[in-house]
Amino acid sequence: MDQREGVDRGGTLIEGVAATIRQRIAARTLTAGAKLPSVRAFARSAGVSTSTVVEAYERLAAEGAIRSRPGSGFYVESALAPLSLADMGPKLDHEVDPLWISRQSLNAGADLLKPGCGWLPASWMPEAGLRRALRMMARADDDALTDYGTPLGLAPLRQLLSRRMAEHGVAAPPDQIMLTESGTQAIDLLCRFLIEPGDTVLVDDPCYFNFHALLRAHRAKVVSAPYTPSGPDIEAFGQALAEHRPRLYITNSAIHNPTGATLSPVAAHRVLKLADQFELTIVEDDIFADFGDPATSRLSAFDGLNRVVQIGSFSKTLSASVRCGYIAAPAAWIDALTDLKIATSFGSGRLASELLLAVLKDGGYRRHMETLRARLSKAMAETSKRLNALGVTPWIEPQAGMFLWCRLPHGIDAAEVARRALSHDVVLAPGNAFSLSGAASNFMRFNVAQCENPKVFEALSRSM
Amino acid sequence: MDQREGVDRGGTLIEGVAATIRQRIAARTLTAGAKLPSVRAFARSAGVSTSTVVEAYERLAAEGAIRSRPGSGFYVESALAPLSLADMGPKLDHEVDPLWISRQSLNAGADLLKPGCGWLPASWMPEAGLRRALRMMARADDDALTDYGTPLGLAPLRQLLSRRMAEHGVAAPPDQIMLTESGTQAIDLLCRFLIEPGDTVLVDDPCYFNFHALLRAHRAKVVSAPYTPSGPDIEAFGQALAEHRPRLYITNSAIHNPTGATLSPVAAHRVLKLADQFELTIVEDDIFADFGDPATSRLSAFDGLNRVVQIGSFSKTLSASVRCGYIAAPAAWIDALTDLKIATSFGSGRLASELLLAVLKDGGYRRHMETLRARLSKAMAETSKRLNALGVTPWIEPQAGMFLWCRLPHGIDAAEVARRALSHDVVLAPGNAFSLSGAASNFMRFNVAQCENPKVFEALSRSM
Repeated sequence: MDQREGVDRGGTLIEGVAATIRQRIAARTLTAGAKLPSVRAFARSAGVSTSTVVEAYERLAAEGAIRSRPGSGFYVESALAPLSLADMGPKLDHEVDPLWISRQSLNAGADLLKPGCGWLPASWMPEAGLRRALRMMARADDDALTDYGTPLGLAPLRQLLSRRMAEHGVAAPPDQIMLTESGTQAIDLLCRFLIEPGDTVLVDDPCYFNFHALLRAHRAKVVSAPYTPSGPDIEAFGQALAEHRPRLYITNSAIHNPTGATLSPVAAHRVLKLADQFELTIVEDDIFADFGDPATSRLSAFDGLNRVVQIGSFSKTLSASVRCGYIAAPAAWIDALTDLKIATSFGSGRLASELLLAVLKDGGYRRHMETLRARLSKAMAETSKRLNALGVTPWIEPQAGMFLWCRLPHGIDAAEVARRALSHDVVLAPGNAFSLSGAASNFMRFNVAQCENPKVFEALSRSM
Repeated sequence: MDQREGVDRGGTLIEGVAATIRQRIAARTLTAGAKLPSVRAFARSAGVSTSTVVEAYERLAAEGAIRSRPGSGFYVESALAPLSLADMGPKLDHEVDPLWISRQSLNAGADLLKPGCGWLPASWMPEAGLRRALRMMARADDDALTDYGTPLGLAPLRQLLSRRMAEHGVAAPPDQIMLTESGTQAIDLLCRFLIEPGDTVLVDDPCYFNFHALLRAHRAKVVSAPYTPSGPDIEAFGQALAEHRPRLYITNSAIHNPTGATLSPVAAHRVLKLADQFELTIVEDDIFADFGDPATSRLSAFDGLNRVVQIGSFSKTLSASVRCGYIAAPAAWIDALTDLKIATSFGSGRLASELLLAVLKDGGYRRHMETLRARLSKAMAETSKRLNALGVTPWIEPQAGMFLWCRLPHGIDAAEVARRALSHDVVLAPGNAFSLSGAASNFMRFNVAQCENPKVFEALSRSM
């Protein structure tokens, strides 16, 4: 009896040790070719017997994960152990895994309803302007159709962006603006530029879920501070800076994803004061710029592109099919960022920037945005009413944008609801996909523009 | 007198120590927040006096690069020391710096002649087909104009790529093909997936110069093996594998950049045998696929997407303005590669892939490529004749493509010639930009499609 238990416990311990090492190889803290700790050293540090470690090493050797070199020790197999984001993060349920939700939304056919996705339905986009721009491009110069873009990207589009940012209070001359392939690529380039594997990055809790995936790809250590209806919880924010000394803070200002909150001037000021004190760099993702009031507080407006970098794109208001984003950064960074862009993507798409420029210059775009804002505001009110009727209550009433961050009725788990809704062909976005701390299991993000079909609420009701 | 000399030598030593540390901070081997070695330890290891090190540390502290914490030592300032590719590599003359050449070519206005650039003039590209595709897209569904692409990218384009690869002997089912924003992004994603900072990567000597810049961004250790007219020098290749155990080899098959050489079947077979022996993964960049004979040897054809990954794009034959590339990889890698793509660029451009699909399906594309191949072949013969007349002799007579790799008359330095030619508004590509070992100072790459203007040869003649 005792012996059986001993074997069982031994078996569990051996597997535990083996699993630990497998995980380190997957996360690449143990890289191919690296020597494993000696059996004795590992046993001592793990508090297990040497025979347990010997068994675990032999099990891993049998799997081909490690290899013994007689007289020298155990080594991680040099066969490739490629970087797998899925293996690197904490083990998450599919329903709250940022990568799974992105894929699910991107893969969704026309038959799937997706109130959980982060963009507008195609029919809400300025397709008439895009069609005009395409016809115009069909008559453009050969160069525009076939040549690479310039290193910084199309100058007239950078000039237009500079004027647009000025309307938001951000002083960014065109030569401090670099075009990228997308908003995501803009943040990715900045992470490459600013952080090292192992560096700490601060995000909001909740925040846009792809920040988690992106930072995992950069092997950053991620910490979070709670977000309030007027910006980060300043006390927790300051504490996170003091305790973790993050190099970088990535956030949405203007309209926050997923909460729809708006940064208040006083919160912006305090964030910047703390950033100065702790030498923090901030990436401000202003991707929802065109949805809100231009006068809304932006960190980059207060700071003047000193320690705040602004990024953005047109995926949400113009087209996600025509890829183009931008970075507005301190002048001293532009050359090195351009080098990085050329080395890793050899410039940004000229055709995409020519098309966007044509649409943005077209008088129709401002009219389209006015109509869109009115339509979103109406959809916000209607969705809010319908959700309230189901006991699903918005956390705040957002001033603008497409997101409603909602609390489900007490005791209902959002991931569970999302799982059930998927069987009714509805893709939802449960709160913990956005929350590093996992504190949002009772929350869900709704995209009001994707909630016009009453089936969304039927499925939600049946899934709760 | 003695004292003056002492001060001078001391001054030089202090600056030497300070420069070493500045360089380590720039290269990020000393990262922000890291503790510097103690004064005594540094003095011992550098073989200088402790007072020299104290002076150097104080100089760096005055510059704000490091900071003293009383009782604890010196630390690298936590202010950002961002990644600068320019500071990371060896100090190169502008003329042979890959990043500088790329920028110069990308920035070149219509008044600059650029026989050194790696692409065709706009007038050689299939602009009529592109214009038809743009007009067609102006009538496409809303979704195609405004929605994100699917995670793997447009299915009909992946099917077409799969059929095209089959013509080249490469068996790649559509679900093993993932679209990317560009060929460069394809290699970048693979590097993210397959290598760690500090890993060793093997390239050809000479090779496409942006491989050097890209690998610098990944902080890889780069080694090279000489390229011969039929592929890598097998003996040197095997030796590099045995000595450096690279994880990855990046190469062009079919038509090699910059030499225009073609891989022979026997060389392909030997490379793959060695790759098996040393567990090497190979990225084969087949970007010039459409220029050559479809039957030309490809590593991925022999290997069957086992340890060889193929990448490509349409920048060279169709349009560099419409960005789209692809990766054909082992089935087991596709999910993790897709995750990485979503995390770092949130999908590839749908419009770009729809446009390329339309052009490729258009009967005009094959006719265009036939005309283009004939035109390149004629330009190759003419450029070769003109260069020979100046004593500039092609290394080989390439079977196809746009590149002529040429030896300059004895004793003439290609970088020097490039510097002088630029003052005549001609951008050249001197050999050492392509050569890790710096063995190609007497070589230059010419793009025959960019050599139609006689001014190219006048400027070359005046610059030698």
